[in-house]
Amino acid sequence: MENFLYSIPTKIYFGKGQIKNLATIIKEYGNKVLIAYGGGSIKKIGLYDEMVKNFKDNEISYVEISGIEPNPKIETVRRGIEICKDNNVEVVLAVGGGSSIDCAKVIAAGVKYDGDPWDLVTNPEKIQEVLPIITVLTLSATGSEMNKNAVISDMATNQKIGTAHENMKPKASILDPEYTYSVPKKQTAAGTADIMSHIFENYFNHTKGVDIQDSTAEGLLRACIKYGPIAMEEPDNYDARANLMWASSWAINGLISYGRSAPWVVHPMEHELSAFYDITHGVGLAILTPHWMRFSLDDITVNKFAQYGINVWGIDKHLDKFEIANIAIDKTAEFFKKLEIPSTLREVGIEEEKLDIMAKKAMNPYFKYAFKPLDENDIINIFKAAF
Amino acid sequence: MENFLYSIPTKIYFGKGQIKNLATIIKEYGNKVLIAYGGGSIKKIGLYDEMVKNFKDNEISYVEISGIEPNPKIETVRRGIEICKDNNVEVVLAVGGGSSIDCAKVIAAGVKYDGDPWDLVTNPEKIQEVLPIITVLTLSATGSEMNKNAVISDMATNQKIGTAHENMKPKASILDPEYTYSVPKKQTAAGTADIMSHIFENYFNHTKGVDIQDSTAEGLLRACIKYGPIAMEEPDNYDARANLMWASSWAINGLISYGRSAPWVVHPMEHELSAFYDITHGVGLAILTPHWMRFSLDDITVNKFAQYGINVWGIDKHLDKFEIANIAIDKTAEFFKKLEIPSTLREVGIEEEKLDIMAKKAMNPYFKYAFKPLDENDIINIFKAAF
Repeated sequence: MENFLYSIPTKIYFGKGQIKNLATIIKEYGNKVLIAYGGGSIKKIGLYDEMVKNFKDNEISYVEISGIEPNPKIETVRRGIEICKDNNVEVVLAVGGGSSIDCAKVIAAGVKYDGDPWDLVTNPEKIQEVLPIITVLTLSATGSEMNKNAVISDMATNQKIGTAHENMKPKASILDPEYTYSVPKKQTAAGTADIMSHIFENYFNHTKGVDIQDSTAEGLLRACIKYGPIAMEEPDNYDARANLMWASSWAINGLISYGRSAPWVVHPMEHELSAFYDITHGVGLAILTPHWMRFSLDDITVNKFAQYGINVWGIDKHLDKFEIANIAIDKTAEFFKKLEIPSTLREVGIEEEKLDIMAKKAMNPYFKYAFKPLDENDIINIFKAAF
Repeated sequence: MENFLYSIPTKIYFGKGQIKNLATIIKEYGNKVLIAYGGGSIKKIGLYDEMVKNFKDNEISYVEISGIEPNPKIETVRRGIEICKDNNVEVVLAVGGGSSIDCAKVIAAGVKYDGDPWDLVTNPEKIQEVLPIITVLTLSATGSEMNKNAVISDMATNQKIGTAHENMKPKASILDPEYTYSVPKKQTAAGTADIMSHIFENYFNHTKGVDIQDSTAEGLLRACIKYGPIAMEEPDNYDARANLMWASSWAINGLISYGRSAPWVVHPMEHELSAFYDITHGVGLAILTPHWMRFSLDDITVNKFAQYGINVWGIDKHLDKFEIANIAIDKTAEFFKKLEIPSTLREVGIEEEKLDIMAKKAMNPYFKYAFKPLDENDIINIFKAAF
């Protein structure tokens, strides 16, 4: 196990009706709120009206930024910062999924920064003071509700970049699984794939002696595999929605990554697909993952893949380890199909002639330290296999 | 899954050499420290000298309370409070295992309280302002380094009582597994049993839909079963010490208990043994646990015991579920024997004529909500079976 600093200060109000605590939470930090959200779904489920009534009853004033995109854009961040500055906003409240939360994080950091907020995306060290961030989660996927990360896109330059800062960790998040009852099948599936991909990025790693992190990751994966399909078939199954929601936070809040380190690879590859084509992040991840696994399987990595097969998929441990690994990869691909996620890049509108340039932009010198080291040519081959 | 509020604000500096951060951590909160510790082990391993040098280099002044007992006594708490008041202490630093940390917590709470600190033990609601608490852990067992609990004894009245308050959560804890290299076999065993007992108390529970909490608990138990014996045989096996240390924190910091609730039963029973006979807490727990399990196995609880047997001990899932449950309980008892822990109460000097009075004092009306409800007579029978 490697050294680490555990720091997960976000308070999580988990469960039915926790919205009743929102006004009290906000008032710890201020009385002037920016509500940041995406489309109209929070109005459809009555959440918006309930919040607004709550604010009026508690003398909390608010302004809004809505229409935050699925891959939130830097222009939207700029607009949010302006609204905050014009209205002396004290607290940024994100209501929605990871996109709204990510956008809110960079808005909250940008209010206290004099330059253009794109600087904070390309250079996280420039982030300093950040307005207090509170979130109400309505989609289980990115884990942004309990960590320091944000991903922002500049479609003009085909850039989708992740930034992070300790001060961007939300002060508190309300996780009411009932808010995800209305999430459509497609997004439930993509969210489940996103959660699983975060777990894979942390799990496929060579650090020894991380039994606790590994067994926790395996349990989270089994929860996704069990409850993802249930949530699609029975959208109001509370335990299914609750396990997916809590898994989304654990997958990427540090619990399974503390004590080991290696660069993530599937996410950076997918970011290029989304940056060029604005596809759903979880879908891109699900398409790439089995091909990345097949590419990564070799004499050095086979033991971890076999561990994955035995502990996550229950494959007979007496089989040959390469056989276990291959069955596990097949099962992973089959599972994403069962979630009705497209399994090729061409199905989601990606063009073959763009594979080279996307691979070039995805490439990162740190990939030589990956679980299975990879170069630009390897990325092209994974893209082609997934095409 | 039930509603819950997640709040684990303690920062954990985990790994080799993390003591280098101590002065910086302390200076966030003040410059006058009370060092609270037990016997001389922190001097033997050179930790005390390193800290003191560090304090001098960083202009941190300190006073001390040493000789904190394995079951810390209220008299020691009173003495600590006096020292703090006399010296305007700003930060309480516990260096040691759970006893030193528990004692430090109530000292830190007592400094700001006008009455006698025993009030804070019997009535946690009286706890309000608490001096910042920082810990350096040298024994993996109680989990006190990452939670709000403290157990204090009054030997004059044979009382050993647990108290708890959000403000008693340490601000930061340094967990360097190397500090536990010198922990003797016996204490390594007792610590492992203590960790496992915390996990059992959270795990044996009827709440449905807690897959993530259950699989995490099972992984922690497997880590204890794997690494407990290794740490006893190879005291300086880093990964063994690291997994036990991290497991000690996870077992009782909330991660596996959030989302479900039922009263703990083995701990309250053991507290009476320690209160009357001052025995090692982990030893008492290890003696009682298999007997509590046998008592608790019935038609209602058998599925959970079978789940435990399959997922923790790897017992063939095709066997009859009662058979699986009984094998799992036998394996639990065998494991504690393998750790060379006494398996009867008489071996640790407990007298048969005291069983009735200890059972009477252990009894709690909430035990009717336990995993397997129990009354005073049941406790007597468990004590007798364990005698």
